Amino acid sequence: MYEQIYHYMKEEIRQGNLGAGMKLPSTRVLAEHLKVSRSTTQMAYEQLLSEGYIESVPCRGYFISAIEELVEVRDQPSGQFVTAEEPGEDGCAVDFSPRGIDLDSFPYNIWRKISKNILVDDNKALFLNGDPQGEYALREAIRSYLHSARGVRCSADQIIVGAGNEYLLMLLSLVLGSGRVIAMENPTYKQAYRVFTSQGYPVLPVEMDRQGMDVAALRQGRADTAYVMPSHQYPMGIVMPVKRRQELLSWAGEAEERYLIEDDYDSEFRYKGKPIPALQGMDRDGKVIYIGTFSRSIAPAIRVGFLVLPPKLLAEYKKKAGFFASTVSRIDQNILYRFLTDGYYERHLNRMRSVYKGKHDCLMGELKGFEPVFSVRGEHAGIHVLLSHTGSSREEELEKAAAAAGVRVYGLSRYFIHPEQNRYPSTVVLGYANLTEVEIHEGVRRLKKAWKIGGEPS
Amino acid sequence: MYEQIYHYMKEEIRQGNLGAGMKLPSTRVLAEHLKVSRSTTQMAYEQLLSEGYIESVPCRGYFISAIEELVEVRDQPSGQFVTAEEPGEDGCAVDFSPRGIDLDSFPYNIWRKISKNILVDDNKALFLNGDPQGEYALREAIRSYLHSARGVRCSADQIIVGAGNEYLLMLLSLVLGSGRVIAMENPTYKQAYRVFTSQGYPVLPVEMDRQGMDVAALRQGRADTAYVMPSHQYPMGIVMPVKRRQELLSWAGEAEERYLIEDDYDSEFRYKGKPIPALQGMDRDGKVIYIGTFSRSIAPAIRVGFLVLPPKLLAEYKKKAGFFASTVSRIDQNILYRFLTDGYYERHLNRMRSVYKGKHDCLMGELKGFEPVFSVRGEHAGIHVLLSHTGSSREEELEKAAAAAGVRVYGLSRYFIHPEQNRYPSTVVLGYANLTEVEIHEGVRRLKKAWKIGGEPS
Repeated sequence: MYEQIYHYMKEEIRQGNLGAGMKLPSTRVLAEHLKVSRSTTQMAYEQLLSEGYIESVPCRGYFISAIEELVEVRDQPSGQFVTAEEPGEDGCAVDFSPRGIDLDSFPYNIWRKISKNILVDDNKALFLNGDPQGEYALREAIRSYLHSARGVRCSADQIIVGAGNEYLLMLLSLVLGSGRVIAMENPTYKQAYRVFTSQGYPVLPVEMDRQGMDVAALRQGRADTAYVMPSHQYPMGIVMPVKRRQELLSWAGEAEERYLIEDDYDSEFRYKGKPIPALQGMDRDGKVIYIGTFSRSIAPAIRVGFLVLPPKLLAEYKKKAGFFASTVSRIDQNILYRFLTDGYYERHLNRMRSVYKGKHDCLMGELKGFEPVFSVRGEHAGIHVLLSHTGSSREEELEKAAAAAGVRVYGLSRYFIHPEQNRYPSTVVLGYANLTEVEIHEGVRRLKKAWKIGGEPS
Repeated sequence: MYEQIYHYMKEEIRQGNLGAGMKLPSTRVLAEHLKVSRSTTQMAYEQLLSEGYIESVPCRGYFISAIEELVEVRDQPSGQFVTAEEPGEDGCAVDFSPRGIDLDSFPYNIWRKISKNILVDDNKALFLNGDPQGEYALREAIRSYLHSARGVRCSADQIIVGAGNEYLLMLLSLVLGSGRVIAMENPTYKQAYRVFTSQGYPVLPVEMDRQGMDVAALRQGRADTAYVMPSHQYPMGIVMPVKRRQELLSWAGEAEERYLIEDDYDSEFRYKGKPIPALQGMDRDGKVIYIGTFSRSIAPAIRVGFLVLPPKLLAEYKKKAGFFASTVSRIDQNILYRFLTDGYYERHLNRMRSVYKGKHDCLMGELKGFEPVFSVRGEHAGIHVLLSHTGSSREEELEKAAAAAGVRVYGLSRYFIHPEQNRYPSTVVLGYANLTEVEIHEGVRRLKKAWKIGGEPS
């Protein structure tokens, strides 16, 4: 099992037995030595890589990373999580919308059964206003899920349930107060950017390197709050390594008013190794505000998301925004509570993970013929990948040619706060969540033709 | 029928045939003249009175009011509307909470049936994000209801559905922009006050006379936006006459940036005559922002309210806040849509109106013995009344004595923006919506004892 190797090495690194900068044996040598298959050692290394414990240097091999501070990360039961988001635009044959989700696999029967049972109780109280933060039982169920699945450490008291990301960010703005400057990864999730600017915050776009938000660049700005998506950056697909997470936490720890907003929108779907625990779980100083949603993992229409506030901000919330009645109906909260606690959510996530893995693998297989004209990235997690042109075609040309062939792809520029700042090579985003394998095949076939790539796939 | 008399006289007044200041025959003389019962002429006069077309001068009779501008108010089918709000606090024998609603009469079976039917469709689209303003069909159903029941004139495009009053006021703040000064009736609905201050608006409390917000006082302040509850002021229970409404509209019309926010939270329940059409229906210049809710007329947990924006602000909304996804799930929107369009809402309102009328009459009967030590007001509409002490007892003393007898009543001061500004005689608010007639009887019995009023009722 690759897990044993992974755990062993992680422990050795964390205890300092394997020092920073030390070179590791190659996966081949280690496999021979341990008498396991090479894919086993590769998987172990990949998990260590994606968590940032080791680094890969092209043509030289793997090296132990410098870990500023050791992290306590609870072990995750593997094979458990999956996700999704909003509807794609239509009007074309194949729409690679990164906001689509697969609703064919939604457990309608179960949702209906739960709804029926909850309404059958004729529970008068359900029709009254409930706790402004959300039903305690639901918050406790969310806490338990976040703890085991995401390594989030909090009490149910710290959780605020609300109707969607935008509302919750608006509420958070009340809690954080005005006068802040928000740093955001660039490109980023534009909805969050729109909410922040609508609340009057100046937003500073901060460049990313391959590990995520550039902390040196963050330091140069005057931001006191940084909005990041460490588990799978949208849209770049970067999984932020542990070291970068620690650097961000260090930055936040340097001043009283600094906070990190961790948007964990897309944490449930990973195709290589285990999900990486949330940044929040590494936070010792109450610096991380965690925001999550069921929009992708269940359905957008559910309109349930949640904030996890550090204790200091929880007190601010109670003072400044505690009077806001919950925006989610108690009936819906109870349906979700049952869905979570009766094991349906876990089953649904497992199912969706396998569904999305199938689509992911299908798309990745189809895209093989695109290399070396295009390079693929962001493919380790989430429900979209990025295709970068290695030649001189411009992004709009790629989009336009695809559209002429009846395929919608999404140019990276649209995710930039200022599109003219896009210095990446021409890149388009391909989401695949709400496409069937037949549609993926057809879409790729059309793209090949539109972009004049090789012959048909064999 | 009193309606004929009412319509005839209203038309005469509006066409100027009955001039301002003219004295009307007494109800007795008119009844003899028309060969109808005196209660018929009384009802006609009362409706004209409550709509402000005529005025009553004690010991002198009824006079035609000065109507600055004629209003077009569509005729309302009568006997149609009822309402309610949030849960009362508990821990006492009888809680006269003004925020309670009667949920014993909620049509659980119908709600369940509709929910089941909607989920049975396995309608995938329901689980995707919908229109940010809310489902078009639901908005059209709300428009139709508002038109026929409240005289509101708008298109479905102007309606924005959202999860509750606080959220909608927050959204409205984005639309209105910062730098405004909000005038509020004093005492008022404190939740709205809290939202406005949380959004950074200075709030100017404006005194009321017996007709509602004092427009002269409004003019003295620097407010450019006035939040009013013309159909039943909370908590004073004032029904704003037409003349005052026109004065407010005139004030708003005098400057480009001025707006009126009409909170019509409590429009469905009236016990004398017909509901008074909304201020919005009188507005010719796009000056009224209408806000309504189903929290009281259906149930708080439904979490559905709506804004009706004038065209100019609708454009602002689309620019500044159109990106906010709806906070109400599509499933819930569809349930409500069915409830409205299949006639259940109308039936429910009729039922609740009769239920609340019964409770209202019961309470009013019980309170007769309180005069002249107390005077009752605000009893023509809504689901609460006010009891003012004509002697020297202080409000806290009344509250305290009641509490000692196991009864919760609500001192008027708590509805003041600055409680120390309360210059009304000692007054308590009694809500009766979620009390049974037995509880009302018991509550009043205890109050009599606690406040040392006369003997037991006969």
